[in-house]
Amino acid sequence: MLNIQTPTLLLDKQKMLQNIELIVNKANVHNVILRPHVKTHQSHKIANYFRKFGIDKITVSSLDQAIYFSKDDWKDITVAFPVNILEIDKINFLASKIKLNLIIESQYVATFLEQKLEALVSIYIKIDVGYNRTGLKIDETNKINKIVEIIRYSKKLKFEGFLSHSGHSYNAKSIEEISNVHKESLTVQKRIKEIYAKGFPNLINSIGDTPTCSLMNDFRNIDEIRPGTFLFYDLVQWKIGACTLYQIAIAMACPVVAKHASRNEIIIYGGSAHFSKDFSILPSNEKYFGYVVELKETNWEIPEQMDYVKSLSQEHGIVKVKQERFQKIREGDILTILPIHSCLTGNIMKKYLTMEGEIIHRL
Amino acid sequence: MLNIQTPTLLLDKQKMLQNIELIVNKANVHNVILRPHVKTHQSHKIANYFRKFGIDKITVSSLDQAIYFSKDDWKDITVAFPVNILEIDKINFLASKIKLNLIIESQYVATFLEQKLEALVSIYIKIDVGYNRTGLKIDETNKINKIVEIIRYSKKLKFEGFLSHSGHSYNAKSIEEISNVHKESLTVQKRIKEIYAKGFPNLINSIGDTPTCSLMNDFRNIDEIRPGTFLFYDLVQWKIGACTLYQIAIAMACPVVAKHASRNEIIIYGGSAHFSKDFSILPSNEKYFGYVVELKETNWEIPEQMDYVKSLSQEHGIVKVKQERFQKIREGDILTILPIHSCLTGNIMKKYLTMEGEIIHRL
Repeated sequence: MLNIQTPTLLLDKQKMLQNIELIVNKANVHNVILRPHVKTHQSHKIANYFRKFGIDKITVSSLDQAIYFSKDDWKDITVAFPVNILEIDKINFLASKIKLNLIIESQYVATFLEQKLEALVSIYIKIDVGYNRTGLKIDETNKINKIVEIIRYSKKLKFEGFLSHSGHSYNAKSIEEISNVHKESLTVQKRIKEIYAKGFPNLINSIGDTPTCSLMNDFRNIDEIRPGTFLFYDLVQWKIGACTLYQIAIAMACPVVAKHASRNEIIIYGGSAHFSKDFSILPSNEKYFGYVVELKETNWEIPEQMDYVKSLSQEHGIVKVKQERFQKIREGDILTILPIHSCLTGNIMKKYLTMEGEIIHRL
Repeated sequence: MLNIQTPTLLLDKQKMLQNIELIVNKANVHNVILRPHVKTHQSHKIANYFRKFGIDKITVSSLDQAIYFSKDDWKDITVAFPVNILEIDKINFLASKIKLNLIIESQYVATFLEQKLEALVSIYIKIDVGYNRTGLKIDETNKINKIVEIIRYSKKLKFEGFLSHSGHSYNAKSIEEISNVHKESLTVQKRIKEIYAKGFPNLINSIGDTPTCSLMNDFRNIDEIRPGTFLFYDLVQWKIGACTLYQIAIAMACPVVAKHASRNEIIIYGGSAHFSKDFSILPSNEKYFGYVVELKETNWEIPEQMDYVKSLSQEHGIVKVKQERFQKIREGDILTILPIHSCLTGNIMKKYLTMEGEIIHRL
């Protein structure tokens, strides 16, 4: 049995490998490049599992992640975040070593790079396909043209293609909504590529979010997908319908520290300082912060009836459990809980414990 | 000027020292022990500023924090979290070195400690004064008596007193509500101490939360206060009325990476992976995730009109700004933002940059 004394992020490697295989196969079937987003795990060891499936391109969300992975010999990295010009030294360091792909969305930044770059980088123009966070809208032709013109005459910028992220798929309430998000993204990406195809025949259309990459089966005119969360999945993805509970590959193991019989509530050592503060909504409209599973020797099982984390303060979690379970639990037991958002939980916990007892560190 | 390239947690040491001094003076005036909660900062260096004010007792929220601070020669530490019996080895390690104060709320845990302890520890019984998270209610006399009896005949457990945390003060909407929370806590603590005063004449009544410790002026029958957040404060405390905006001593400095003129929105490098996901509510009922201030050479200034962080995804923040500010900002500038919850932001960021350019690390 695993030696757990404090809140611990468990990783079921078998589930993770199955999740990877599923998306790898899907990318192959649809003939798109799979460039997984590694921000979800941020670990050399886990990235190496992708290599076994033939993956040699990754996506990161910061230059620090790019540097970390370049040290483990990843040679083709897309930083899927608008260029932060304050980090020009890191950009030049990376550009001299690997194929570095950056995303830009303004003339100002394009000009800055053209002036300051010391080696070639590949550029995606960031397109906003409906998420309304950042990126250029397809009808901002004047702005897009100006960037394209800077790239066209630059010796340091290579025009790689168009990149988008349909983050609004995370808020989808049905598969129809996800399908609509995806269709809009396909339409926009197809059109923008056609506009510039004449001058640049080999542009890449890159999209990436776990719900659409998990659930959709139409990737026409798409060259590359960049999902990340699919590796672990989580309760947000489950609620969307992008995975089953059985596919969720990480769980928090938390010591029981107190019991309250009058309200069938268990206090665990595990709070927002471990899980993060993300929540999801139960059918009863209550917030919840995690789903209790049964820890076994080599995996965890999903109970038929759901017990859940009702609230989190910084180190305390309050778990609402059914009467039968309540009576069986005592202080010093471990409650194992599927997290709401695996990226943020991993970001805080900083390491994983596999069901085989191996500790996997991350950036 | 500070060298900032990525999201950075700034610390205004002058404000922090003023915040410390205010609470130290208050504790002196009311003749209560100040045992500050160091989970907010988790730094040897910052804890040392308290020493200059004569503080020699601290509160932590985990045994790992207790070990970290014991290494810097703190000799009297309260772990204000229900004993996690799985960490008995750490407890024995600490009990052999320092005055270790633990909190318990069940006969089961009291018996466990009595059997497994190798050195003396001081015990507070955790009382629930209305927060309804954990602790024993004052009318659970049977349970309290059983714990007291175990302690009474134990050579390893010393009965130190009663400890409570009015965490519901954080949800207060007015000073009257905070006052009611505080009064209830005083009443309960007074009564419970009286009940056991005969057998144990020197029991300590310990309370602690930043809103009541900042705002209340009646600490009769209280022996010790354990606030933590007051050191930095944050927008939650500001909303409650526990501090002014000028007292908030930490701020996130975030690079500007994109601009959207059509909606006066600035995209910053700084998301829930840096701020945490805590939010507060504007008078307009919208969520917000931070308050923009003006970074100057040696401090920051509070603008008369509020610009705010409208949403956070993992690395992106969307900042809604007024037209005049929008036009002045460009990519590569730094936006400085007061955080919603300083404990959680610190928990993720792991280090502070003072306005003098010093990096302060934490656990």
